[in-house]
Amino acid sequence: MDRDLEKNLERFAYLTIHTGVNLQPGQQLIITAPTTALPLVQKLSQEAYRAGASLVTPLYSDDQITLARFRYGHPETLDTTAQWLRDGVAEAYEAGAARLAVHPDIAPGLLADIDPKLIGRAAKAEALARRRELELITSFKTNWSIVAYATPAWAKKVFPSLSEEAAVTKLWGAIFRVSRLNHQAPEKAWEEHNQALWSRVAQLNARRYAALRFAGPGTDLTVGLADHHRWSGGASRARNGVVCNPNIPTEEVFTTPHRERVDGKVRASRPFDRNGMVVEGLELRFEGGRVVEFSARTGQEVFGDMLRTDEGASRLGEVALVPHSSPVSQSGLLYFSTLFDENAASHLAQGQAYSECMENGDTLPAEVLEARGANGSLVHEDWMIGSGETDVEGITQEGRAEPLMRSGEWVDPA
Amino acid sequence: MDRDLEKNLERFAYLTIHTGVNLQPGQQLIITAPTTALPLVQKLSQEAYRAGASLVTPLYSDDQITLARFRYGHPETLDTTAQWLRDGVAEAYEAGAARLAVHPDIAPGLLADIDPKLIGRAAKAEALARRRELELITSFKTNWSIVAYATPAWAKKVFPSLSEEAAVTKLWGAIFRVSRLNHQAPEKAWEEHNQALWSRVAQLNARRYAALRFAGPGTDLTVGLADHHRWSGGASRARNGVVCNPNIPTEEVFTTPHRERVDGKVRASRPFDRNGMVVEGLELRFEGGRVVEFSARTGQEVFGDMLRTDEGASRLGEVALVPHSSPVSQSGLLYFSTLFDENAASHLAQGQAYSECMENGDTLPAEVLEARGANGSLVHEDWMIGSGETDVEGITQEGRAEPLMRSGEWVDPA
Repeated sequence: MDRDLEKNLERFAYLTIHTGVNLQPGQQLIITAPTTALPLVQKLSQEAYRAGASLVTPLYSDDQITLARFRYGHPETLDTTAQWLRDGVAEAYEAGAARLAVHPDIAPGLLADIDPKLIGRAAKAEALARRRELELITSFKTNWSIVAYATPAWAKKVFPSLSEEAAVTKLWGAIFRVSRLNHQAPEKAWEEHNQALWSRVAQLNARRYAALRFAGPGTDLTVGLADHHRWSGGASRARNGVVCNPNIPTEEVFTTPHRERVDGKVRASRPFDRNGMVVEGLELRFEGGRVVEFSARTGQEVFGDMLRTDEGASRLGEVALVPHSSPVSQSGLLYFSTLFDENAASHLAQGQAYSECMENGDTLPAEVLEARGANGSLVHEDWMIGSGETDVEGITQEGRAEPLMRSGEWVDPA
Repeated sequence: MDRDLEKNLERFAYLTIHTGVNLQPGQQLIITAPTTALPLVQKLSQEAYRAGASLVTPLYSDDQITLARFRYGHPETLDTTAQWLRDGVAEAYEAGAARLAVHPDIAPGLLADIDPKLIGRAAKAEALARRRELELITSFKTNWSIVAYATPAWAKKVFPSLSEEAAVTKLWGAIFRVSRLNHQAPEKAWEEHNQALWSRVAQLNARRYAALRFAGPGTDLTVGLADHHRWSGGASRARNGVVCNPNIPTEEVFTTPHRERVDGKVRASRPFDRNGMVVEGLELRFEGGRVVEFSARTGQEVFGDMLRTDEGASRLGEVALVPHSSPVSQSGLLYFSTLFDENAASHLAQGQAYSECMENGDTLPAEVLEARGANGSLVHEDWMIGSGETDVEGITQEGRAEPLMRSGEWVDPA
């Protein structure tokens, strides 16, 4: 490995363990990662042990093995899951283990040639098997973080005309930049960045909007907000008291839509990957919170399967605002990775809401949160709607419209 | 990867899934492997899915991460285990998943510079965490197999004077040869090999020996056999009815010593690796089945820690006969891998006995098996005692000595 890359990976590992996960002495750490990310997983493990980890357990996914299942496996076995493993992981989180996910767990577009029915069958079974995990993560039972590794397959998807080596180098450059690793003291830069996000969050919480209205090419959408919703952004305090940065990078502030109060039409502003299939040219219409109509140029079937996962999958669990001038957006790249693309544009997510985005979300029973409008589902799937042509208004409880973003930028800089 | 190696790996994967594990349609498969064995794990997974696996779950170990824990981890955390994972794996075996282990899970000698006390502390905790797994495997609850992968670190240990590339090529050559992959139809060759081992097993079972006596340089040892012991070798029928080859390669026939009837002195004929530490020049004295005295030139502490794991660790759980002319022995190599070295020489194992090596071992309660002399322990550690200078006698129930092996070879060819 190139000496510069090696050094940057070390700094990235340090940032991830301390600023991202904020691993505490004595904590176990579970790392999920693609096999190709092994060089980073090794450095993360070293850093975790230095920080006092009691045990690091990496669990790897592998594109070739994922593909082999769909190519050679018997279709009727595709809803088999490693429930014994998923239960174990959930148990570990409940007992206090921290979680670190290294993305992508599957190369974007990997399953382009596979029958979407097969993908849907496996995805639904997997979502069911991971229900407890998803609940523990979205309710911040423990501290967690997601970071990325420039795998060769992913890099070639982002830079198809470059050689694999050049593509990987270029993608690392972008990842390090938007992760603020080019700062002298990245940990310090993250503190300042979090302060800026928190002041935006405070501003939005003070307004107690009833709804947001999005307007742009192909989009005229009103997203009602849940009663007693709360905005969030930047670092989060998990229920074990540990403050972590759940995403590196992150540029969003986000909250909980009302599951029954979303109406209008909306056009996705970027393609995105869903389980190895790229969804492109997505357009939807919402009525009373539900997707009632949708179409896509590619990935229509896989997106439809996702919507049919359960009642909550066709409703929204998150609405997020990201300025068009965000560093991720400024990189000018389409990442085919939600971790990045969602931080380049305002976005929505189908499915499960975050309890931290509801007042007393950690303590109130699920029925109360649902009555206030917070959605529940086995899935949580983000997709981008913002661009340099997007206007956003906040609708007050009294029905007055206040401009929030114009041409993709905050009207009132924080 | 070299085209020849790639083709041989494919044949090896086929042999492993069909002749080794004998994976059944609809079975889950858990593969444990070092990260460096990924090329084989990918081929094993493909072959497993072709054979009807409902799901393949690889779990990887990594030398750098193992080492990082001992180098950077806080010593007081070393008895932390992923109990949540070990429980899950045991649960999967109980529910019918097959098991495949790709050795070595740690490079021989990897931990040579680490304080043996730390290794012992981690090893004991790990053995405890895996107790249920070990019981399920040694009692053949499900079909399983162990094969090897020529990792660079292991190959350099076997061929220290060669370049890494040359060492790996040479080690693969040896592995493929002793795995009978050089036969036109390896699966057929394994059937014939199993027939030969089974006829030796039948012969020994018919004799119902009370004890075996080993004589050789530094060795004068009587190993009493358990009452109602049974000899085993070659393919085994697991309790789910599936016939599998638990070891590739295998050249041994083996049975259960009586836990209280081992007396005399014995010298190990080969060094062996215990948890990343090489134990060399081992000499022991047994009295009433227990190790009462021992010394080693290297690895003395790690071997002593192992003996102190529990009451059963200082007693024997297995005695195995291997002719000095076995193909593994004929390769003339010292493998530092028990999977190979135990098939080059007659050997003993400290710790847990195999229930298949007792009459009705699957159904009788543990107390009854113990009363008949079968040992129980959290560990099962093989070490070699046979060589071209070893004589073995069988002692009949009437006390008569019958020659079994002379100068390391069977007196009466099967």
